[in-house]
Amino acid sequence: MDKNTKRTDVNELGEFGLIEHLTKDFPLVQSSTIKGVGDDAAIINPEEGQVVVSTDSLVEGIHFDLMYMPLKHLGYKAVVVNLSDICAMNAVPKQILVSVALSNRFSVEAMEALYEGIRLACKHYKVDLIGGDTTSSPKGLYINVTAIGLGQPGKIAYRSGAQEGDILCVTGDLGAAYLGLQILEREKQIYLSSPGVQPDLGNKKYLIERQLKPEARLDIIEHFEKANLIPTSMIDVSDGLASEIFHICKESDLGALVEEEGVPINMDAQMQALEFKLDPITCALSGGEDYELLFTVDPKDMAVVRLLPDVSIIGEMLPKDMGVKLYTKGGNTHPLKAQGWQHFEEG
Amino acid sequence: MDKNTKRTDVNELGEFGLIEHLTKDFPLVQSSTIKGVGDDAAIINPEEGQVVVSTDSLVEGIHFDLMYMPLKHLGYKAVVVNLSDICAMNAVPKQILVSVALSNRFSVEAMEALYEGIRLACKHYKVDLIGGDTTSSPKGLYINVTAIGLGQPGKIAYRSGAQEGDILCVTGDLGAAYLGLQILEREKQIYLSSPGVQPDLGNKKYLIERQLKPEARLDIIEHFEKANLIPTSMIDVSDGLASEIFHICKESDLGALVEEEGVPINMDAQMQALEFKLDPITCALSGGEDYELLFTVDPKDMAVVRLLPDVSIIGEMLPKDMGVKLYTKGGNTHPLKAQGWQHFEEG
Repeated sequence: MDKNTKRTDVNELGEFGLIEHLTKDFPLVQSSTIKGVGDDAAIINPEEGQVVVSTDSLVEGIHFDLMYMPLKHLGYKAVVVNLSDICAMNAVPKQILVSVALSNRFSVEAMEALYEGIRLACKHYKVDLIGGDTTSSPKGLYINVTAIGLGQPGKIAYRSGAQEGDILCVTGDLGAAYLGLQILEREKQIYLSSPGVQPDLGNKKYLIERQLKPEARLDIIEHFEKANLIPTSMIDVSDGLASEIFHICKESDLGALVEEEGVPINMDAQMQALEFKLDPITCALSGGEDYELLFTVDPKDMAVVRLLPDVSIIGEMLPKDMGVKLYTKGGNTHPLKAQGWQHFEEG
Repeated sequence: MDKNTKRTDVNELGEFGLIEHLTKDFPLVQSSTIKGVGDDAAIINPEEGQVVVSTDSLVEGIHFDLMYMPLKHLGYKAVVVNLSDICAMNAVPKQILVSVALSNRFSVEAMEALYEGIRLACKHYKVDLIGGDTTSSPKGLYINVTAIGLGQPGKIAYRSGAQEGDILCVTGDLGAAYLGLQILEREKQIYLSSPGVQPDLGNKKYLIERQLKPEARLDIIEHFEKANLIPTSMIDVSDGLASEIFHICKESDLGALVEEEGVPINMDAQMQALEFKLDPITCALSGGEDYELLFTVDPKDMAVVRLLPDVSIIGEMLPKDMGVKLYTKGGNTHPLKAQGWQHFEEG
């Protein structure tokens, strides 16, 4: 931490004082929010529709490394990954609750930076911060976000709704967030061995931003609404495309064929993968943290899908007994592998 | 951990497998739950009313010590403290989401015990587990619970609704959970210095149970409903009676007079306090973790309140400039002190 900046110990404010201080600049914009932070619970007046709820934790040393993840970005990302889950149900996020557990290595100023990121995400996605708590942790930083959204019955997209013959689509591009992480990890190692060397990451901006500042594809949900398109199934790409395809296949009791040619990979990501001697398609399939939307549509909606911005058609849903396969650029078909990211650490 | 019991490493199941395994025996009983665990988010069909949401974290080494807190009790308590927040709004809890971060020192069997406690709480309070995640932590156990309930507009009790002249009431008895903790802490120290000594805690059962297995006062909320009584303000006693009185006074812009004579303290708690050379009223005022309900009612409802089971009248709301005061058994009046529990630790 920069020694020239002010450092206020969290104990100076106490738990109540800290949460009050951190949440005071969060205006409420959703008409459905009746009561936000400040009581035993928050109150929502549900609008016409169904309430969609998701919760997720980010843990220091597991999901983020503060050596290269600025706290402001972390706050933004912690919110976004949860809003992405709401979008993945074809619902619109409305409110969030944030719980933070922190050791006293974090100052009030550090928490202000974290909440500044949370505030920016709230502003960008027009969601209200309505609750949460801050508490102590013996070691490290834990952030839990619960996101609440509104969906319309009949329009909510489950993982289980895909039908045989449905078209498999994905938004944006894949693999860049993973490659951004690899760059940051490499720079960290360089920095640790030669602290004086300043990295020039100017031309890696896109990849690093994909890792440090992902976005939830609320814009796509809005396009669906405008185009009157209802995906038959949907999931967000948090663990990697292959893993998410397996989820949809499992829940929908289907197989799938994915065409490598169709999988969208940004040019910078392709170049970077080659620099790292990695196969770009592997980064796209197994990289994760892209927070794009993977969804299926009825073939009759093909024309509508083609008009949607930033959507790629990457395959088709097959009967279950045909398995989950990748058709490569080289013309081969082989089983798709889902490489999960398992990390239960020592401690 | 008992070396004779089976120990399955969490990595054998992986993150998805673990959460699937742990949540498979949770039947859904609420008609408002449309979709529980298993998709990007859960879906609730809000019944007539307003949605009440609260979130809270329990952190190992801060909120609990696994040396004397069995994991099953911990799971139960983690749920209960959140349901208590919903009750404190005069609302009925309906659903919960549970996020767990754990180091690999915890086995699958340990997590099963935790979720068994969560399951018991769900069953007892008729709430549905509808979501959450398990993730790795570099060290220790973190549990975050989000509770969702249903309240009726006009019946929701905020901290801010108390009026001058309102009667101040509290349910159950106070201070026992704190004294239970002191007993457990003492036994831990004895055990650490002489591992062979088996404590006889038979006659401390009530106090220890108040610490290890608190209950949310949903029964009181149901009595309010039956008696058609709406508290003007309410809060649950998590940080200690004095601290909660200050919250109501601050939010309602009032003062209060509390009569020591009226503060309910269980006989076992009184005896134990004296054994520890503590003043029983101090334990009741500052102990915390009782999860009783502190509320105010209009004086016109006095007769109704007197008929409610397990409710004590402890004071009266005063104009703000009269401050927050305690009228002691000895006939003295002095300012009430709120001793918060601040614990931002090193790390």
